[in-house]
Amino acid sequence: MQVAYLGAHTKAGSMLESVHPHLPGGDRALGPNDPHAVGDVDLAFLALPHGASAEPAMLLLERGVRVADLGSDFRLDSIDRYAAAYGSPHPFPEELGRWPYGLPELFRDEVVGADRVAVPGCYPTSALLGLAPLHGAGLIEGGPYVVDSVSGVSGAGRGAKANLMFGAVDEGVAAYGVLTHRHRPEMEQGLGAVGRIEPKVMFTPHLVPMQRGILSTCYAPAASGVHADDIAAALRAAYGDGPFVDVIAEPPNTRWIVGTNRALVNAYLDERTRSVIVVVAIDNLLKGAAGQAVQCANLMLGLEETAGLPMAGWMP
Amino acid sequence: MQVAYLGAHTKAGSMLESVHPHLPGGDRALGPNDPHAVGDVDLAFLALPHGASAEPAMLLLERGVRVADLGSDFRLDSIDRYAAAYGSPHPFPEELGRWPYGLPELFRDEVVGADRVAVPGCYPTSALLGLAPLHGAGLIEGGPYVVDSVSGVSGAGRGAKANLMFGAVDEGVAAYGVLTHRHRPEMEQGLGAVGRIEPKVMFTPHLVPMQRGILSTCYAPAASGVHADDIAAALRAAYGDGPFVDVIAEPPNTRWIVGTNRALVNAYLDERTRSVIVVVAIDNLLKGAAGQAVQCANLMLGLEETAGLPMAGWMP
Amino acid sequence: MQVAYLGAHTKAGSMLESVHPHLPGGDRALGPNDPHAVGDVDLAFLALPHGASAEPAMLLLERGVRVADLGSDFRLDSIDRYAAAYGSPHPFPEELGRWPYGLPELFRDEVVGADRVAVPGCYPTSALLGLAPLHGAGLIEGGPYVVDSVSGVSGAGRGAKANLMFGAVDEGVAAYGVLTHRHRPEMEQGLGAVGRIEPKVMFTPHLVPMQRGILSTCYAPAASGVHADDIAAALRAAYGDGPFVDVIAEPPNTRWIVGTNRALVNAYLDERTRSVIVVVAIDNLLKGAAGQAVQCANLMLGLEETAGLPMAGWMP
Amino acid sequence: MQVAYLGAHTKAGSMLESVHPHLPGGDRALGPNDPHAVGDVDLAFLALPHGASAEPAMLLLERGVRVADLGSDFRLDSIDRYAAAYGSPHPFPEELGRWPYGLPELFRDEVVGADRVAVPGCYPTSALLGLAPLHGAGLIEGGPYVVDSVSGVSGAGRGAKANLMFGAVDEGVAAYGVLTHRHRPEMEQGLGAVGRIEPKVMFTPHLVPMQRGILSTCYAPAASGVHADDIAAALRAAYGDGPFVDVIAEPPNTRWIVGTNRALVNAYLDERTRSVIVVVAIDNLLKGAAGQAVQCANLMLGLEETAGLPMAGWMP
Repeated sequence: MQVAYLGAHTKAGSMLESVHPHLPGGDRALGPNDPHAVGDVDLAFLALPHGASAEPAMLLLERGVRVADLGSDFRLDSIDRYAAAYGSPHPFPEELGRWPYGLPELFRDEVVGADRVAVPGCYPTSALLGLAPLHGAGLIEGGPYVVDSVSGVSGAGRGAKANLMFGAVDEGVAAYGVLTHRHRPEMEQGLGAVGRIEPKVMFTPHLVPMQRGILSTCYAPAASGVHADDIAAALRAAYGDGPFVDVIAEPPNTRWIVGTNRALVNAYLDERTRSVIVVVAIDNLLKGAAGQAVQCANLMLGLEETAGLPMAGWMP
Repeated sequence: MQVAYLGAHTKAGSMLESVHPHLPGGDRALGPNDPHAVGDVDLAFLALPHGASAEPAMLLLERGVRVADLGSDFRLDSIDRYAAAYGSPHPFPEELGRWPYGLPELFRDEVVGADRVAVPGCYPTSALLGLAPLHGAGLIEGGPYVVDSVSGVSGAGRGAKANLMFGAVDEGVAAYGVLTHRHRPEMEQGLGAVGRIEPKVMFTPHLVPMQRGILSTCYAPAASGVHADDIAAALRAAYGDGPFVDVIAEPPNTRWIVGTNRALVNAYLDERTRSVIVVVAIDNLLKGAAGQAVQCANLMLGLEETAGLPMAGWMP
Repeated sequence: MQVAYLGAHTKAGSMLESVHPHLPGGDRALGPNDPHAVGDVDLAFLALPHGASAEPAMLLLERGVRVADLGSDFRLDSIDRYAAAYGSPHPFPEELGRWPYGLPELFRDEVVGADRVAVPGCYPTSALLGLAPLHGAGLIEGGPYVVDSVSGVSGAGRGAKANLMFGAVDEGVAAYGVLTHRHRPEMEQGLGAVGRIEPKVMFTPHLVPMQRGILSTCYAPAASGVHADDIAAALRAAYGDGPFVDVIAEPPNTRWIVGTNRALVNAYLDERTRSVIVVVAIDNLLKGAAGQAVQCANLMLGLEETAGLPMAGWMP
Repeated sequence: MQVAYLGAHTKAGSMLESVHPHLPGGDRALGPNDPHAVGDVDLAFLALPHGASAEPAMLLLERGVRVADLGSDFRLDSIDRYAAAYGSPHPFPEELGRWPYGLPELFRDEVVGADRVAVPGCYPTSALLGLAPLHGAGLIEGGPYVVDSVSGVSGAGRGAKANLMFGAVDEGVAAYGVLTHRHRPEMEQGLGAVGRIEPKVMFTPHLVPMQRGILSTCYAPAASGVHADDIAAALRAAYGDGPFVDVIAEPPNTRWIVGTNRALVNAYLDERTRSVIVVVAIDNLLKGAAGQAVQCANLMLGLEETAGLPMAGWMP
């Protein structure tokens, strides 16, 4: 891939190097977030606030430009689900349900060759990588399932907010969006798509004092008669030959995969409570966002799925 | 209170100021962890590894010295529970069940005037402050209950360990002790002590890159017919006039109470799943350890419960 | 002391607990930063941006209220120095030079009983505690003196700024205000006040990823014939019986004094280069700001100098 | 390049993935640090404690294997300098002064095609990149020069040490090795090699709570008649067409280059004191160690100087 255009919102008009001084080749200008300013390209990545990507996405598609949308406008599959989560009508309701959900490990066939893909949210990526193969195989059921996640702060963006100042984040941890976070419906929808029924999920995100990484610890009732071997087999079947997801035998540290598009999955069957615990680690900015978008774009364009995606992490 | 003796293990023989340069009055020597070296005192605080406090505690009690034991030797109430958790026989099995559990907000009557108290572990303190009033009132039931906790690293002590180096902890998060952490039986026992039945608990601790603070997010099924008002009322009844626990309406940040003996409790009823979520924040070194020990000692000695305990936190 | 009034700028009208949830007694309202709203008090602390404290300070003094000003309006001693540093005329030029400089270890006699005191900046406090006793005794001379400081971010306040976000500060270090920081003239003035001549200072502040603490490493040429003993003697003479400054034999860690009003000073004579190195650690919010203001207020009001000031640090 | 052998000390016998779980291709074993175990290779990287690399280096050279030594055994150019810094005789004194000093921006001609290179220390790399072009051009002189550096903790390695625990490093900063750090002679030697005389340097390293990155703030007297333009011109002449060093107009943040082999240099002439300030940022593990070693190896082997070296940083 070659970068043909870089759009920005408040930073439009700036040079790339002034916004991202860590990147080489920074002496190119950022243009406006305007699809009309984009030339003749094969694919566009959109990373816009909810509600803002629907219109430019449709404009680009009409022009024959493929769209990998990192925003949430096309992730949910029905008007009702969208309205419940976002509290507003959708401008293109007929599009809902038409966009493949860009979690290739679960929905690769739909992503390959697609002209439009809704790239998942960071928390749903982590939860679904852990729970979906087990739910799809009928190894967990009932519930509600619990998804308890901690995240570094980079998921909240770079805008100046008092609650994300160093002095407000450092040396503290807190939950947020308890019962109301918009990523919960995305988890339920994703599980429903792979299983016989759609389970209910309780999701609590927490902010911890680090920059990158999400760790999701997920709890679900084991189905009757399930053994630990069944859990391991289902995960092996799901990820055995995939390049990005590794099933490991100890709890993962997010440090092991930060800087990569990898995910680490670690699962347990608790005989005492007949429950399954799955712990998943991803980099929220890569497998949870930009990396997964590139992975999807590779599949949309017929490129190697791993092209351009880092596999070696940053841990010093 | 006046400090009459300071015992240490590897640091015995050192001056206090060389071990804790942040403390004034540091020009006094640390003696050995030997009860025979302790003079005529009213009360001894023990903070020793599991298995190490039983013997000195009994020696001190025989001499008429009250004991507040921050270790785990006398927390569990039966030989079986102890053996299951610690994998070894107890040297004084007849003592098990005789030690008041030093969580004064739940067991104040037993602690007042006692000559021996088992000060709770840090994670159980947080979980029980959130769940016990609700379980005791029959507002949650069934299960298993889920306790998902994150902690700063100070709970692991100051010994040099490769996995607790700055370079290993910084910018990462991981679960540990999944399904095996010894604080889980303590949680179940504490809940059983206040309710009709003893529930099963799934407990997952996580280490996050900060020094102090524990945040426990707890999930439990609501009993039939329970309303959000019932939750609030039960917590108000438990903590309404206690000095250290505040029930608040938003998710607490551990920063708000680090440096104090306070706990913050924040509870929700999720109608979608008929579940209760309780989020609790404590300082693992104060309300989760030394502060609670002083609180217990105050009650054992007939002093003001809040004497010597900090209420103003460190933020920022 | 008793708090009679709490003023605020953007937070006026808020409850204390919503702004500082870590403080007990938070259910009192913040009023406006208006001296007319302040009742009959003995002393007012002002902590306002430069240029903003001069007028309210004079109004309060006219009413007989003592003023401890943490801002910079009355620190510099001449119109020229003020204009050079702040680039604007001073509204009360006749006041410049009349305000005792509130670094009691160096200027205690002037602070005791004063009705107005200019509390020093955080960086000058650290630099002067290290260099002033040596410069005053003629043990260092020539130059320029170099003051190289690192600071936690809390000195920059709590307002939302993009460059102080967690994601911008964490895991990085940078210099700022090279050659232009306004605390440099304050250092030169303070040194000039205790010595025969006013030396030139080069000052470079750096921001490091921590909340509190300043460490200043200072370099100055040794005067001819000076021995290491002379350095030690001069520091001992300056701080021997003061309560807050300790001269120590190893490089201090800011952690040892964060949370206190203490300063740690560690000095060396380098025979190779005939230079002196002095390393000083303070808590920028206490000895570098609010703590020193209380210390000054104690002396202004005839109270015990250490009243209300914490001596035990936070280091876990 | 292809990796033919991986040696280790305490980890010999382990799999790479158990030591460095963030690296792909981790299922290969680590062998002992024994040159006899190394097969027929073109070049060996040694990264051993001081005193430990001399012997294996000479063995490998005798076999015709090029050596890039990241240790300090061959950096100093004379027996006296080595003895003064390390306090012990050198086992191969005749080799001292024969090893090109592997800072290609200053000594590229000597490194190209060499069979042995002493890769510089992290602090000297930062100091020399800032000061050497100015000293070499006679723009600074006299002194002593001051090098005040802050570093992340990764430079200290991964062994378990009490003073490098998260709880000991987090939220604090301290100087160490004041006047005694062994990187000071390396700085003086490097400056002497490019200038008419060898200046004296005062060097103070500090540890700050971050993983990677060094920022060195350097102070030196300007030579008579020097203008700011001369400073800029000398740096431009030194780095204008080099791939890794950028001269910038604002103080660099280490975040901008962590994860890369880049260095950022920012210089000032202070007319008030007739002094030069140069601020340099590098990643201590890349340009300060492994990255520079690869850069040297590329030149030794006739490869592209930038081959295999990352230019895009990690921020965040």
